[in-house]
Amino acid sequence: MKVRQTGITVGVLPTGHKNCITDVEGVMVGHVTLDYPLDAAGKEYACTGVTAVLPHPGNVFRQKVTAASYVINGFGKTTGLVQVNELGQLESPIMLTNTFAVPAVTQGTLEYMLAQNPEIGETTGTINIVVGECNDSYLNSIREFAVKPEHAIEAIRKASGQQTEEGAVGAGKGMICFGYKGGIGSSSRMIGEYTIGCLVLTNFGKKEEHQKFHYSKVEGLSDPADGSIIIVMATNAPLSDRQLLRISKRCGIGLGRTGSHFSHGSGDIVIAFSTAHMSEHFTDELTEQRIQLREDHPFVNQLFTGAAEATEEAILNSLSQAVTTKGRAGRIVNKITFTDEE
Amino acid sequence: MKVRQTGITVGVLPTGHKNCITDVEGVMVGHVTLDYPLDAAGKEYACTGVTAVLPHPGNVFRQKVTAASYVINGFGKTTGLVQVNELGQLESPIMLTNTFAVPAVTQGTLEYMLAQNPEIGETTGTINIVVGECNDSYLNSIREFAVKPEHAIEAIRKASGQQTEEGAVGAGKGMICFGYKGGIGSSSRMIGEYTIGCLVLTNFGKKEEHQKFHYSKVEGLSDPADGSIIIVMATNAPLSDRQLLRISKRCGIGLGRTGSHFSHGSGDIVIAFSTAHMSEHFTDELTEQRIQLREDHPFVNQLFTGAAEATEEAILNSLSQAVTTKGRAGRIVNKITFTDEE
Amino acid sequence: MKVRQTGITVGVLPTGHKNCITDVEGVMVGHVTLDYPLDAAGKEYACTGVTAVLPHPGNVFRQKVTAASYVINGFGKTTGLVQVNELGQLESPIMLTNTFAVPAVTQGTLEYMLAQNPEIGETTGTINIVVGECNDSYLNSIREFAVKPEHAIEAIRKASGQQTEEGAVGAGKGMICFGYKGGIGSSSRMIGEYTIGCLVLTNFGKKEEHQKFHYSKVEGLSDPADGSIIIVMATNAPLSDRQLLRISKRCGIGLGRTGSHFSHGSGDIVIAFSTAHMSEHFTDELTEQRIQLREDHPFVNQLFTGAAEATEEAILNSLSQAVTTKGRAGRIVNKITFTDEE
Amino acid sequence: MKVRQTGITVGVLPTGHKNCITDVEGVMVGHVTLDYPLDAAGKEYACTGVTAVLPHPGNVFRQKVTAASYVINGFGKTTGLVQVNELGQLESPIMLTNTFAVPAVTQGTLEYMLAQNPEIGETTGTINIVVGECNDSYLNSIREFAVKPEHAIEAIRKASGQQTEEGAVGAGKGMICFGYKGGIGSSSRMIGEYTIGCLVLTNFGKKEEHQKFHYSKVEGLSDPADGSIIIVMATNAPLSDRQLLRISKRCGIGLGRTGSHFSHGSGDIVIAFSTAHMSEHFTDELTEQRIQLREDHPFVNQLFTGAAEATEEAILNSLSQAVTTKGRAGRIVNKITFTDEE
Repeated sequence: MKVRQTGITVGVLPTGHKNCITDVEGVMVGHVTLDYPLDAAGKEYACTGVTAVLPHPGNVFRQKVTAASYVINGFGKTTGLVQVNELGQLESPIMLTNTFAVPAVTQGTLEYMLAQNPEIGETTGTINIVVGECNDSYLNSIREFAVKPEHAIEAIRKASGQQTEEGAVGAGKGMICFGYKGGIGSSSRMIGEYTIGCLVLTNFGKKEEHQKFHYSKVEGLSDPADGSIIIVMATNAPLSDRQLLRISKRCGIGLGRTGSHFSHGSGDIVIAFSTAHMSEHFTDELTEQRIQLREDHPFVNQLFTGAAEATEEAILNSLSQAVTTKGRAGRIVNKITFTDEE
Repeated sequence: MKVRQTGITVGVLPTGHKNCITDVEGVMVGHVTLDYPLDAAGKEYACTGVTAVLPHPGNVFRQKVTAASYVINGFGKTTGLVQVNELGQLESPIMLTNTFAVPAVTQGTLEYMLAQNPEIGETTGTINIVVGECNDSYLNSIREFAVKPEHAIEAIRKASGQQTEEGAVGAGKGMICFGYKGGIGSSSRMIGEYTIGCLVLTNFGKKEEHQKFHYSKVEGLSDPADGSIIIVMATNAPLSDRQLLRISKRCGIGLGRTGSHFSHGSGDIVIAFSTAHMSEHFTDELTEQRIQLREDHPFVNQLFTGAAEATEEAILNSLSQAVTTKGRAGRIVNKITFTDEE
Repeated sequence: MKVRQTGITVGVLPTGHKNCITDVEGVMVGHVTLDYPLDAAGKEYACTGVTAVLPHPGNVFRQKVTAASYVINGFGKTTGLVQVNELGQLESPIMLTNTFAVPAVTQGTLEYMLAQNPEIGETTGTINIVVGECNDSYLNSIREFAVKPEHAIEAIRKASGQQTEEGAVGAGKGMICFGYKGGIGSSSRMIGEYTIGCLVLTNFGKKEEHQKFHYSKVEGLSDPADGSIIIVMATNAPLSDRQLLRISKRCGIGLGRTGSHFSHGSGDIVIAFSTAHMSEHFTDELTEQRIQLREDHPFVNQLFTGAAEATEEAILNSLSQAVTTKGRAGRIVNKITFTDEE
Repeated sequence: MKVRQTGITVGVLPTGHKNCITDVEGVMVGHVTLDYPLDAAGKEYACTGVTAVLPHPGNVFRQKVTAASYVINGFGKTTGLVQVNELGQLESPIMLTNTFAVPAVTQGTLEYMLAQNPEIGETTGTINIVVGECNDSYLNSIREFAVKPEHAIEAIRKASGQQTEEGAVGAGKGMICFGYKGGIGSSSRMIGEYTIGCLVLTNFGKKEEHQKFHYSKVEGLSDPADGSIIIVMATNAPLSDRQLLRISKRCGIGLGRTGSHFSHGSGDIVIAFSTAHMSEHFTDELTEQRIQLREDHPFVNQLFTGAAEATEEAILNSLSQAVTTKGRAGRIVNKITFTDEE
C-alpha cells in the first residue's frame, strides 16, 4: 500500500491524482521483472529487472525534452549524463536496472531507438541513451548477467501512463532500503496548474538510522549503509535545463530527510526533465520559441518544495509497497511494517 | 542557551568539548557587533557586524590550509570562491558580514593581510580573500554602509579559540531565521580522534515551515522564505580538497532537515577547510607529502554524518542563543522559545 | 593601431563595423585611467584604472540580460560569478580593474546601482556586482589603493557605444602581455544577422612563447608567464545561459592560439552575455517567452568560431593599440612592434 | 610515419623516448581492428575496432590510480566519468571504440575485470568501467554492431608497453580527421624526471580549416565539422585529481591549435591519470600517504605546456600515421600528405 495509507503524510503540498510520476501528462512507466533460479540448487538466482520511464508516448529522439542531471554522490555507473549536461536535453527513455546490466540495457534501448529511427547512424548522427543503476547483489546473482537487451525493449514496450507498480518490481526487484525490501517508489505534487512527479529506485540506508520503522532482521549485508538511489523527476512546468538542475538539487533534501547521509559508496543521481517544450530533431529553423517559468515567481520555490516532498514520499512508497522477497542463496529481505500500520 | 539545554538533541555522534567550531584545534572566531542609531530619529539603524573565522593562529597566507566550497544555492555575493575552487586552498580568514558590506570587509581583510605580509603585491603576487554574506536589511539600514574596513580588522584581531558567542552577534546581529532572531550558531562532532566543527550565519526560513517552534509575530517581512545561510565547516581530519567538497555537500542535509528547501532567493554557501596539512607559501620544494584519509574508511561516512548533524545543530543554536533584537524603523525580531523550554 | 592594420588577420569570419564589442547594439564601454606619482620621488605610482562594460544603456538591474561565466583558470579574484552561474543573469555592468581595487570598484558600482534603484535593500532585496581583475603590480603601486569607488562610478558614466579606446587605458593602463604593453583590446565577428563582440583585459604571457613578435626588453618581471586575462563576450544572438557557457568555453581556444597555456598563476575568466532577451525585474508574470537559437543550427558552430577568433584578435589589439608606458620605480614597458609593421 | 619525420615540430619541450603514451612507465596499449565485409555485396562493412589503455600491468581494480576527466564538449556517450569525478580514481582500463559499441565494450571489459576479481559483486561491491567513443559511421556500418564483448577482452590482453600502432588501427580504424584518415595518435613530453603522454582517438574537423595540409577529396560527408576526439593523458608526475583536472583542461589548447572550435556535435573528452600513487582496494588502513607536486613549482606550468603540446602532436600523428582506408558502400578516405613530405 502507499505510505499515505499507513497514516504517514509527507509535506504540505497536494499530491497529483495518482500520487505517481505518471500524473505528469504523457509520462509512461514500464517494468520487466526477473525472478527465477539460475541453477538447479537455487544458489544463483535472478532477482532483478528493468524499469523504463518514457517522457512522452511519441518518438523521444524526434521530440526531445528539456533535461538536467545532478550527481548527489557519484559512486555509480549511470550512463548518458555527459550529453544531457551539455545539451540540456533528453532523447531516449530513462532506463533503470542493476549495476552490471547497464551494458545490456543500453544495448537493448539503443536497438529499440535504432529500429524506431532508421536515420540514426546513417544520415543523422547518434543517439544518447540514459541508464541508471543500483547494486542488487545481495538478492540477485549480479555476476550472472541475467538481464538481456530484450528485457530493456520489453520494458519500453510495456510502458503505460497508468499508476505504476511499486516496490519489488522491475529494476526494484532486488533492491534493499534501510535494511528492508525497497525498490521502485513514486509520488507527485501539484503546484497550481503544474505537476511534478518523482520515481525512485531505492537501494540505500542502514536500518539503525531511521526511527520511524519497525525493525526486522536482514542477514549477510556487510555494510548496508553504502547503497544508492536513482531519482527521476518529471514535470510539465516550463523550465529550462538550468531551472531543472535547481529542482534536481532539492531532491537531496527529501533523501536526507529519510535518514541518508549520501554515503561514500552510493550512486545518488537525479535526472529531471520537463515535458513542456519539445525540440524537433528534424527542422531547419534558426530559432525556437520557449515559454519559461519566471525565476522569481513563487511557483519556483513551490517546485523546490515539491521536489523535496515527492522524493521523500517516493522513497517511503518504495518501502511500503514492497513485499518480502527471496533471492539468491536462499536470502530473504523482509517487507517493512510502518509503525502506524496494523 | 545552547539548543541541547532545551532538551533537543540532533543526531547520534558525540559533540566536541565546547560543541563549537573552535573544538577544531587552532580555529579561532572573532566578532564585531554594530548596534546604534544612524540618525536622530532612529529610523536608520546599524544592526549588523562582522565575524571572522581563522583556520589557525599563524599567518594564513604563509601557511595555507586545504579547502573547498560548495554552492547549495547561488543567489548570493560571497567572494573568493573562484580561487578556492581552483587551488583547493584557503589563504585568508573567512569573513562574514551583511551583503552590502562585502567590499568594506574585503578591503579591511586585504589591508590586514598586506600589513602582515609586506611581500604581497611586491615580490609574491596577490592574496585571495573569502567573504560570505547574508542580507540583514529588515533590521539593519543596509544602504547606509555602516560596516567599515576597520571593523573587519578588529574582528580578526579579536578572534580567539574560546567558545564563540552565538546568536545576535557579529555578522549575525541583524539576521532572521524562520521568522525569529537568528545569526551566528556553532556545533561540533567527534569522529574517532578527529573533530568536525561548524559555524553558521543563518538568515533563512519561513515560520510556518518549522513545526518544533513556538510561534511569534514578526511584521514587515514581505517574503521571509527567501533568505540565506553561510556554513563554515572546519576539521582536523586529513582530507583533500575533493574530500572536503564531499563533506560540504552533506551540509545541505542538515539545512534541509531544519525545514529549508534552498529557496530561490537564497545564497546558501558552504566553505570547508582542513587544518591537517599546511602548505608553505615560501618554499622551493618540488613535492609535498600529504597524509590523507582513505576514502573507503568508515570514518568518511561518519564525517558525512557529522557534517549533516553539526550543520543542523549549529542552525538551531543560532536560534536558541539569539536574543530579541531591535533594529531600524523600530522593528523588533523576537527570540524563539523552543517548546521544550520553560 | 588595430592589429589588422599591421597586416595580421585572424580567422575567416567578417568583423563588425567597428571590430569592437560595441558592434553589439546597446553595449557601451567606459574607461577611467589613473596615471600620476603617489610620492614626490615617483617611487610609488598610480598606473592603473577602471573599465566598465554596460550590456545596454538602460537600467541593468531592472532589465537583466542572460549571462554565463567560465573559469579557464581560477587563480583570480573576480567577484559576482556565484549568482551569475545560479541564475544565468547579469544585473550590473561588468567592471574591470586591478586585483586590489576589486573592493573599491565593487563599492562604487554598488553605490551607483543603489542610487539608480532606491528599492534595492528596501523592498526588493540585493544586487549582484561583477568585477574582474588582473594584477598590474609591476607598473602600478597596487598596495597603495589608488582606485577609489568614485572611479568606478565615473567609468560607468563615461561609457558610450562608440569604438572603444584600447591598449594602456582604463583597467589596462598598467597591464603587460607577452612582456610588452598590453591592456584593453576588442574585436567582433558577424554571423548572419548576429554580432559577437569581445573585450579583453590582457596581462599574461612570456615573451619567448610567441613567435610573431619583435622582442624588446622588460626588466624586473620575475615570472612574466603567470598573468591573467579577463574576457568579456557580448552577443545579440538569442542564447540561453547554457549556450552562452558553451560560447565562453571557446574563448580559451583563441587564448591558446596566442601562446598561452593558462598558467598556474593566472585568473583567466570569461563572462558572456546576450542582449537578445531582457528579463524585467518588476513584474508578476508567471512565465516569460524566450526566442532561442536552435542548438544544431550551423550558426551555433559559427558563434563558436567567432568566439575563438574575436578573443584572439582582441588580445592582439590589446598589444597593437598599447603605447610604451612608464610606471612605478621608473619602470617602463615597451609597446610591441609587429613584424609586419614599419 | 610520425609527423616529426615530415618536418613538423610541435612546441618546445623534449619528447619521451618513443614519443608515445607508453613512455609513461607501466602504461600499456592494445588494439583490435575489425576490417571485413558484413554482406556479400560489401555494402555493409566492419571498419572499426577497440583500443585499450592500461594504466599499469597489474590488477587495476586492486591498485587504482589517481584520475580526472574533463568534458571539452559533451555531445558524446563516454561512460564511467561520474565515478571518476567523485572519487578521483580509475579502476579499469580506459577503452575506446565506436559510439554504438560502447555497451559491448563495457560488457567485455566488465567480464574481464570480473574474471580477474572474483570478489566483485560478491563481497566487495562493483567496478567502474570507462569507455570513450567516436562515431565512425561514414566508413563503418555502425548500426550492425560488429564489435563484440570479446573484442574488448582481446584488446586488453594484447596490450603492451611498446611503441603503439597509430592511425587506422583499433578504435581508430574508421575515424576521419579534417577530412583525411585519422584515428589513433600518440605523443609524449618530458618535464624533468616526469613524463606526460597522450593518446588520442581523432574524428573531427573540416578540411577547410587547416592550412597546413594538402587537400584531397572525401565524398559523402554531409558535415565533416561535427566530429569528436577522445584524449587520454597519462603521467608519472605525482598529481592529485584536482591537479589532473587542471592538466586535462590544457588539452583543449592543443586541440584548438589544430583548427578545432569544439564543434556543437562533438564529444571532446579528456581522461587523465597519474601512475605515481596506487591506492590499494583491499586494506583497512585509516590514512594513506601521498607525495604531491607542489602547485607553484615551475613543473606545473611545464606540465600544462606538455599537455597542450602532446595533444596537438598526437592529433597530427593520428593523421600522419594513417593509411588510405576503404569502408562501407565502397567509401574511401585518403591518407593525408603533409606539405613537408615528398
